[in-house]
Amino acid sequence: MAFEVFMMKRTIRIIGIDPGLRHTGWGIIEISGNHLQFIASGTVKSDATFPLATRLCQLYQGLSRVLQAYTPHEAAVEHTFVNKDAMATLKLSQARGIALLVPAKTGLHVSEYAPNTVKKAVVGMGHGEKQQIHRMVKVLMPKADVKTSDAADALAVAICHAHNRQVHIFARKVKKGL
Amino acid sequence: MAFEVFMMKRTIRIIGIDPGLRHTGWGIIEISGNHLQFIASGTVKSDATFPLATRLCQLYQGLSRVLQAYTPHEAAVEHTFVNKDAMATLKLSQARGIALLVPAKTGLHVSEYAPNTVKKAVVGMGHGEKQQIHRMVKVLMPKADVKTSDAADALAVAICHAHNRQVHIFARKVKKGL
Repeated sequence: MAFEVFMMKRTIRIIGIDPGLRHTGWGIIEISGNHLQFIASGTVKSDATFPLATRLCQLYQGLSRVLQAYTPHEAAVEHTFVNKDAMATLKLSQARGIALLVPAKTGLHVSEYAPNTVKKAVVGMGHGEKQQIHRMVKVLMPKADVKTSDAADALAVAICHAHNRQVHIFARKVKKGL
Repeated sequence: MAFEVFMMKRTIRIIGIDPGLRHTGWGIIEISGNHLQFIASGTVKSDATFPLATRLCQLYQGLSRVLQAYTPHEAAVEHTFVNKDAMATLKLSQARGIALLVPAKTGLHVSEYAPNTVKKAVVGMGHGEKQQIHRMVKVLMPKADVKTSDAADALAVAICHAHNRQVHIFARKVKKGL
């Protein structure tokens, strides 16, 4: 019981990532009990004039720098949804591979969330508009300095993980037989 | 002219990569003039019982070790084709992101080839069967010790690049305005 209380009060730093080949948004928050705090957010960009492999390398280096600077404890990445433009989905998935790799490489557990789960966590329903998500991120964390929609989406992913992380950790322990 | 002759005779070591989330094949060859030589081949595996991010990390570490061991000069990776199973395509694309990243991260230029271009380069037509590709890899490089079909496919990608690299290098120079 004492351990559980300790777990609840411990400050956990979370990075949320919204992957994209051109722009990958990232957002860092801290959760302590039920309190959420904005730490930082931004966008890692790749230069579209470079070959695909070089662009993935730019995303890798940019995200690695963010992780080194803010040393989060846990990571959450938005799921890719399959849309009608198959080529766009392929590009996004390749960028997503990098977004999953970078935190895993530093030993962080990476949780994945479907876009509708993220929307539900911040807006309260599964099909919120983009602008509605940004407004709610500002409501939940008034001090958040969010300059791009990708950064706002990434913060929404981090908030979603803050709400769901206990379930994820429990599921992981069950899977490991702990 | 003297420079061109030098370029033709220089020994170039190429890594070909056939990406896959479960098995990523790799093959190293050397080209000197028109002569192809087998150096090594193998498969990097990810453990399907681990989360996706960890599996991508396993592919990253495995491919990084191959590059460190064999220090190729150029890399070639097979294109992902969009098939009917959208989820399978997504998984493959995420693994492909890693296959493109690892050589690019060490400063190698990474060429990409469509599966039909690879088949045409080794079999002579664009729709060769898998087994036909393996047989031709053995014909082109009798000393090749190829244990898996993924490794054979990766060697086929490397052979394809050996045939097409001058065109790729020329196109790159034109793009850069050199």
